[in-house]
Amino acid sequence: MAGDPLPPGSTIGILGGGQLGRMLAMDAARLGLSCHVYCPDPDSPAFAVAARHTVAAYDDAVALERFAAECDAVTYEFENVPAGTVEILTGRLPARPSGRSLAVCQDRKAEKTLVEGLGIGTAPWRPVDRSEDLCAALADIDTPALLKTRRFGYDGKGQARIDTLDGAHAAWEAIAAASAIVESLVPFALEVSVVAVRGVAGDFAAYDVVENVHEAGILRISRVPARIAPATAAAAVEIARQIAEELGHVGVLAVEMFVIRDAGGERLMVNEIAPRVHNTGHWTIEACAISQFEAHVRAVAGWPVPSTERHADAEMVNLIGADADRWRDFAAEPGAALHLYGKSDTRPGRKMGHVTRLRPRGS
Amino acid sequence: MAGDPLPPGSTIGILGGGQLGRMLAMDAARLGLSCHVYCPDPDSPAFAVAARHTVAAYDDAVALERFAAECDAVTYEFENVPAGTVEILTGRLPARPSGRSLAVCQDRKAEKTLVEGLGIGTAPWRPVDRSEDLCAALADIDTPALLKTRRFGYDGKGQARIDTLDGAHAAWEAIAAASAIVESLVPFALEVSVVAVRGVAGDFAAYDVVENVHEAGILRISRVPARIAPATAAAAVEIARQIAEELGHVGVLAVEMFVIRDAGGERLMVNEIAPRVHNTGHWTIEACAISQFEAHVRAVAGWPVPSTERHADAEMVNLIGADADRWRDFAAEPGAALHLYGKSDTRPGRKMGHVTRLRPRGS
Repeated sequence: MAGDPLPPGSTIGILGGGQLGRMLAMDAARLGLSCHVYCPDPDSPAFAVAARHTVAAYDDAVALERFAAECDAVTYEFENVPAGTVEILTGRLPARPSGRSLAVCQDRKAEKTLVEGLGIGTAPWRPVDRSEDLCAALADIDTPALLKTRRFGYDGKGQARIDTLDGAHAAWEAIAAASAIVESLVPFALEVSVVAVRGVAGDFAAYDVVENVHEAGILRISRVPARIAPATAAAAVEIARQIAEELGHVGVLAVEMFVIRDAGGERLMVNEIAPRVHNTGHWTIEACAISQFEAHVRAVAGWPVPSTERHADAEMVNLIGADADRWRDFAAEPGAALHLYGKSDTRPGRKMGHVTRLRPRGS
Repeated sequence: MAGDPLPPGSTIGILGGGQLGRMLAMDAARLGLSCHVYCPDPDSPAFAVAARHTVAAYDDAVALERFAAECDAVTYEFENVPAGTVEILTGRLPARPSGRSLAVCQDRKAEKTLVEGLGIGTAPWRPVDRSEDLCAALADIDTPALLKTRRFGYDGKGQARIDTLDGAHAAWEAIAAASAIVESLVPFALEVSVVAVRGVAGDFAAYDVVENVHEAGILRISRVPARIAPATAAAAVEIARQIAEELGHVGVLAVEMFVIRDAGGERLMVNEIAPRVHNTGHWTIEACAISQFEAHVRAVAGWPVPSTERHADAEMVNLIGADADRWRDFAAEPGAALHLYGKSDTRPGRKMGHVTRLRPRGS
């Protein structure tokens, strides 16, 4: 699986054509690598910056075969790629990260089981495979709790809050899932994440821990450095390293965590793992010589893991829905690095772009 | 000419498909702007990252008309665009920079005349319109001198050195030009450049002065900050501002200067003006939140001039010809930001990529 690094001129296939694919394709081009983006949506933002693209369904075996034949390695901009798609591609060419990273991160039960298996904290949780299990699960853990579909949730979708036992049935109806997990809402002081990269040789590096603010389940702001103790930051990076190692992950992965503050100091609980470049790592484009996107591409190409050093403090704000209509304000703000994803439709809750502002380190 | 800023989703036309066009197209995409690259070379590096491209000659009026109809503004990645091409485009859509910037910078005589007219120093020079003028010119200025074609010179091409009057005729034969200029070689302490940007409203900003090392007429290394006195740096920026203003320039322009050190301190002489993004500004990609490429695109789109603030010291090294074969070394060097331009043919003297290394400011 390791093999020789792909030389410049090679083609990286990217499944998914959203803003993450778009930013991956641009950083691949910086390295002299070519990109082929595969996405069912003919209006995919990533197509505009990729040398080639395919518009086809994720289960179109003929299109996938052709795509595989034209690429030297394949990666994913999102984790909800159907398992069948990955099966067709794996074996034909290096697929990085591998099917195991995807399979675990697609399934909240598998994810939490893996994290707990490493002795890493999570919010108290129980699997809920049938509606009948929900009451028993809620007997074990505290409310308020969140009921989450096991699969295909993102940006707060597929989730329902349960404040009291009375509301359990309504929550189950609301998410309308075949299977789910329920987890206690923990009273966290901060949300943080670690964006890290692991190479084919097992080499590992992490960007500085970032502090995040979510609104209505959607990331609003990321700030680096996170306002946590140095020991907590080191522990957060170690958690990401253990998870990446356990998955045999290749590429970038992001681990979202809660920081719990009590009399004993700061503790971490893993909330979610994303086996890909992540919204909470967008600040790396301006604040680091090598961004999370380039780090991912390098790992996918079998190159050594690069430096994740940061030379500025940074704050990133997502532009969600109509926020992007204020582009003139951001364009007129001298230090603001504006990113717009080239999406033609503005919809409420849709990530349209982001703005990063830098400050000197430690200011 | 000013008008409203182009909104995201607009299309910027770029004449020229080399690495400068490629880096412009990537930064335009960051802002949600689309690019259409026009270049006669079907293997143009910029095509891979642009939403659209046209392969056609610069004098293909039909192709140019179609290109103009599909773009909202047009710019150039190099100054040697034929005047006729610019004529066809100007009037149909905003052409930024304008034909005046191109006309002056295409012609060493016009360029030096403009600089002198502003009271700015240049190396002693004389126009040589016919071979018969060369001896008279050399009677006025000191040897050693450089004979340079008036038009279409770059990377040391179209130049010949004259060490003594005896060598004058051979130099004239070597450059084989219809008209030329001859200039004295000045004993400079340093070569520096200012990469600056001027907006449609006349707003202006400059990146920090950069120190350059050329080898065989080709840029080898750029380092920022330049090791010059603060007053010299301020004077260099003021020179760039005056030139941009005089040209009515819109977009990025680079002014290369010699720093002369003598008993009186440091003096500046303008060597050359490039009315475009410039190799000596590549370090801005990593060391600034907004690179020279994005600054140029913003100006072309009629947006306000952005901040040119720098948050790290930087050194950029060009990868020329076979240098790029060492990509594995650069890929393994943790802090090195590697750029490869996607050129399929490695030729001696050809710019294949560059590497930028950052250091904390003032270190």
